[in-house]
Amino acid sequence: MNENILGITAAILTSASMLPQLIKILKNKNVDDLSWITLLILIVGVSLWVWYGIIKDELPIILSNAFSALINITLLIFYIIFRNK
Amino acid sequence: MNENILGITAAILTSASMLPQLIKILKNKNVDDLSWITLLILIVGVSLWVWYGIIKDELPIILSNAFSALINITLLIFYIIFRNK
Repeated sequence: MNENILGITAAILTSASMLPQLIKILKNKNVDDLSWITLLILIVGVSLWVWYGIIKDELPIILSNAFSALINITLLIFYIIFRNK
Repeated sequence: MNENILGITAAILTSASMLPQLIKILKNKNVDDLSWITLLILIVGVSLWVWYGIIKDELPIILSNAFSALINITLLIFYIIFRNK
């Protein structure tokens, strides 16, 4: 497989992977089994990847991790909203 | 910040991020709020990253994503074990 197609496919999958989790939380409004520590580490981690992408001037790294950061921040916000239910 | 230290820190955080989620599941034996679609997409995604790392001969990409794959496969196995509880 062409390495660029492989890299782009991998980036799209790992970036979009948390979307089904977000949809499930929005539907069930229940977050008891989620780990907020996981969400927090992910947000810090992908934010560092964005910073790394900016330094290395690699747009795919910046875009895919910025998208991940956005989804995980949204997840953490809904975690906080729903956790006291 | 040195770009290598930045990249390594980002890689360690994103790879290790699912560990607290795994620990929470093992402790509570409850997976109702987890999305197995998220886990499946993550496993395929990080496996493609391992493949990409092998083609590009980049050991940090191989190691960090192989570790992620291992944790997410473990999570999916416990999802299957605990989901019928």
